[in-house]
Amino acid sequence: MRILLKNGRVINVFTGEVEDQHVLIEDEKIIGVGDYYTEEDADSVQDMAGSYICPGLIDGHIHIESTMLTPAEFARAVLPCGTTSVVADPHEIANVCGADGIRYMLEASEGIGLTAYIMLPSCVPATGFDEAGARLTAADLEPFYDHPRVLGLAEVMDYPGVVAGEADVLEKIQAARRRGRTVDGHAPLLTGKDLDRYIAAGIGDDHECSSVKEAKERIRKGQRVMIRQGTAAQNLKDLLPLFEEPWAHRCLLASDDKHPADLLEKGHVDDMIRQVVRAGKDPITAIRMATLWAAECFGLRDAGAVAPGYTADLLVLDDLSGIRVRDVYCKGKRTVENGRLLPWEAPVVGAELARAVRSSFNLGPLSEKDFHLEHSGIRKCRVIRLHERQLITGEWTADIDFDRENGVDIARDILKLAVVERHHDTGHKSLGFITGAGLKKGAVASSVSHDSHNLIIIGTDEKEMAAAGNRVREMGGGCVAVDGGKVIAEMPLSISGLMSEKGAAEAARENEELRHSVHLLGVPQDVEIFMAMAFVSLPVIPHLKMTTKGLVDVDRQQIVPLIL
Amino acid sequence: MRILLKNGRVINVFTGEVEDQHVLIEDEKIIGVGDYYTEEDADSVQDMAGSYICPGLIDGHIHIESTMLTPAEFARAVLPCGTTSVVADPHEIANVCGADGIRYMLEASEGIGLTAYIMLPSCVPATGFDEAGARLTAADLEPFYDHPRVLGLAEVMDYPGVVAGEADVLEKIQAARRRGRTVDGHAPLLTGKDLDRYIAAGIGDDHECSSVKEAKERIRKGQRVMIRQGTAAQNLKDLLPLFEEPWAHRCLLASDDKHPADLLEKGHVDDMIRQVVRAGKDPITAIRMATLWAAECFGLRDAGAVAPGYTADLLVLDDLSGIRVRDVYCKGKRTVENGRLLPWEAPVVGAELARAVRSSFNLGPLSEKDFHLEHSGIRKCRVIRLHERQLITGEWTADIDFDRENGVDIARDILKLAVVERHHDTGHKSLGFITGAGLKKGAVASSVSHDSHNLIIIGTDEKEMAAAGNRVREMGGGCVAVDGGKVIAEMPLSISGLMSEKGAAEAARENEELRHSVHLLGVPQDVEIFMAMAFVSLPVIPHLKMTTKGLVDVDRQQIVPLIL
Repeated sequence: MRILLKNGRVINVFTGEVEDQHVLIEDEKIIGVGDYYTEEDADSVQDMAGSYICPGLIDGHIHIESTMLTPAEFARAVLPCGTTSVVADPHEIANVCGADGIRYMLEASEGIGLTAYIMLPSCVPATGFDEAGARLTAADLEPFYDHPRVLGLAEVMDYPGVVAGEADVLEKIQAARRRGRTVDGHAPLLTGKDLDRYIAAGIGDDHECSSVKEAKERIRKGQRVMIRQGTAAQNLKDLLPLFEEPWAHRCLLASDDKHPADLLEKGHVDDMIRQVVRAGKDPITAIRMATLWAAECFGLRDAGAVAPGYTADLLVLDDLSGIRVRDVYCKGKRTVENGRLLPWEAPVVGAELARAVRSSFNLGPLSEKDFHLEHSGIRKCRVIRLHERQLITGEWTADIDFDRENGVDIARDILKLAVVERHHDTGHKSLGFITGAGLKKGAVASSVSHDSHNLIIIGTDEKEMAAAGNRVREMGGGCVAVDGGKVIAEMPLSISGLMSEKGAAEAARENEELRHSVHLLGVPQDVEIFMAMAFVSLPVIPHLKMTTKGLVDVDRQQIVPLIL
Repeated sequence: MRILLKNGRVINVFTGEVEDQHVLIEDEKIIGVGDYYTEEDADSVQDMAGSYICPGLIDGHIHIESTMLTPAEFARAVLPCGTTSVVADPHEIANVCGADGIRYMLEASEGIGLTAYIMLPSCVPATGFDEAGARLTAADLEPFYDHPRVLGLAEVMDYPGVVAGEADVLEKIQAARRRGRTVDGHAPLLTGKDLDRYIAAGIGDDHECSSVKEAKERIRKGQRVMIRQGTAAQNLKDLLPLFEEPWAHRCLLASDDKHPADLLEKGHVDDMIRQVVRAGKDPITAIRMATLWAAECFGLRDAGAVAPGYTADLLVLDDLSGIRVRDVYCKGKRTVENGRLLPWEAPVVGAELARAVRSSFNLGPLSEKDFHLEHSGIRKCRVIRLHERQLITGEWTADIDFDRENGVDIARDILKLAVVERHHDTGHKSLGFITGAGLKKGAVASSVSHDSHNLIIIGTDEKEMAAAGNRVREMGGGCVAVDGGKVIAEMPLSISGLMSEKGAAEAARENEELRHSVHLLGVPQDVEIFMAMAFVSLPVIPHLKMTTKGLVDVDRQQIVPLIL
């Protein structure tokens, strides 16, 4: 089957030119680009009438789980944005379900229009402070390299391990490099000698740069920089100078973590390009980052360009600076027509796998005494301090009066925090205090709690915390807001406690209701409590975090006691 | 073992910047680049005192056999030029010795200082008109892909086969692409739809561009362009506009075929860069082509840059525009110091292989009647016309009087040409006429005759031709000039009839004597007869050629009779 897209303005990502050309597609491939093709060369002809033909957009690094959508629903949400490939790190589900989680993501992303490339999670569990649902060694990852959509090793967050030369993590890196595969990095603020050691281990890119200085050091040292614009972590504005040479061709675009409403309202990679253009940068440069240069990062030889031999992943754009996507072709097949998604069947995941990822919650009922701290009197305690719209937390030393509300002090915004192991019903849990959440009543609980995805709860009293925790448990995973022991909003995430069974619009609506519900509990308008909470248990981001094993001083990489 | 190169001016090929830095090497790798390293970080320190530190130069496409040197002697010749890697296509020896030839080149290039990457010859024999010493199928090439220095499939010269969709050649291309390997192209003047088909088959680069227009079409269609400057084919001057963006980053440098004297007198990739600089272009751009961008073409992730994790192949340059190479490090080991090659042992090739490549000549003695054409009277004949310094030949129709000197007419420069099968003693041979060689007496003969490397002879009479041919036969391969039945100069090429056993200087001297000797026979000063002769039997270059099977009309791809 040959399709001729005639009279297009083809965006040439090799040269940055825009050329008046016809594009000839045969089955999954582009087989010709030239003004010499005629209708006789094709079985079917589409007149582009001067619209732009652009390679499909590539998200260089995303955790699909963070969208709370299954891969198929995610695809439905982003195909109209012109995303034809994502490089996904199933790190979240792997921390819950181990190798089954990776298998699920591979099966559930087969035939969903866009191509979901998979990077193998490198840090399951993320650190020694974590109690994840599984542990993945180099040997566990080994068989996945044969899968045609597996590209390499996902973000190596254990940068202290790499810098220290720890065998486990180096073995995983070397396994990928021996195969000539890409190894993604994650090393915020690492610099100088430590960064050299990290890069020399074989780590080819980073998506954690928050300043131009940080990005330039990495590019000069040979890494590619993924400019990240997610729902929480937003680096685009600060990294705008990278949209000029000599930096641009060493950069790509990534979303990392995107919430469903954000995807539906603003868009995906297309929205990053729009933001870049609004900031006065060249759309073609941004498009090159989101196509060819992304493909090059992963050694993909036939992706990211409109040229002979390339996969026919392409977009018809009515407008360049607005990236108004009219049609989308994935592997030569139209998946979006006039902005509307054409229907397709979601893949059916094997019954055993489908069951495995839906039965990840393994925890007995919780009672209020599970949230009681056995201390008395006024004690100096470490309190985790949330910062607005940041994943970095602070440490605040506060006098806690355990004799009043077991330490909770709503007036001073000192609330109770719990992290409860929920994979293997070990009974392990930690209790502590947090400030910055702003609840005046009730509690919030979630099974989305990077990276181990244990049950995390912030509450104003023990009863409310138990109610919230139990509701998440009953749903087999999800997020909930509770007031007076009653659910005021909830979002079930029955697939490994991370993903919804629902469509993107419905999931986004549920998520929005949940987000807004917390303001009824007193959470300030500018605090995204579920997002903030999701990173309170991740001891790879500074400064004070809490896992099931206790408070973690991230900078010193050690467990520290609640009471000083 | 850690070496610190301090106070260097490091050429950053990622950004094009030159930075004052120290470079830390550990064993084979660069492990750090920064101003924060001190002598305490290293076991040994070298003060660069402001000299440039440049990644080692990469020749993107070379036939080492064309230098007439063994890989070790070739390395000795080019290491002082700063060449630390070559991507070699052992196409010539493979056409003589088949898989043994590839094996020989791999063994003979192990541990020779520079890294000799190997591309697997795609066209053995080159065409159906050829009688080579061997035939290599996709299955024959298969096992070589596991060798760590084998990168992909070498220049696919059979572009008519690719365009026509012939299964044999497509199978070889697909075998390389399935492994994610590079497939080199060779398709001079191919354009439009045919070029699209050729590229769409999976061919990633071309080194045959002779005009900017040709090169730009290829770059726009996604190929990388190798700018070639060999002894015979010289495209650098015509392609100078490519040393600017948006073209430059899609280009690399290649020598293809270089004669030994040329290497010793002018240099190698370094000399290309010097020529570029003399023409007013930026040396850094040329260096980036010869390093990182070459590595990218072949998917080499740790070659071509001075950066953490990269192989410590680097040069110390006293001067940038002159590329004056002071020291050369290969895999962290100094191989050139103050411009002098440090001694090392040539690799020892296994006895059986060594024997195999030295017994490639299989041909009985020749007599004058072997060169006699059984025609009489005056007949209109096709005569091959040599053009000065071009591989392209013409067709001239001349009246040949077979009753006088069996058609030879020195006054009109019509000489006799013979191509004699020499691999399997089949007795196959072709006789014809050639103009442009200019011999007034004697004969010349050579076993270097692309790509089948049969015995080729141009002579003024049959006796001289027999004498010349027999001498090449006695040497087991080589080149010879004969006058009055006596050798006036010769160059034995006992390794498969292509390579000398001698060192570069001695081989170059022999070759120069041979080159000059032919002028005694009347060959004009501006005719390089051995080089011209070496391409007279290659039916992939237009327009009229002769193989053992007869005259070939290359444009029509068919055998044509001598007499019209």
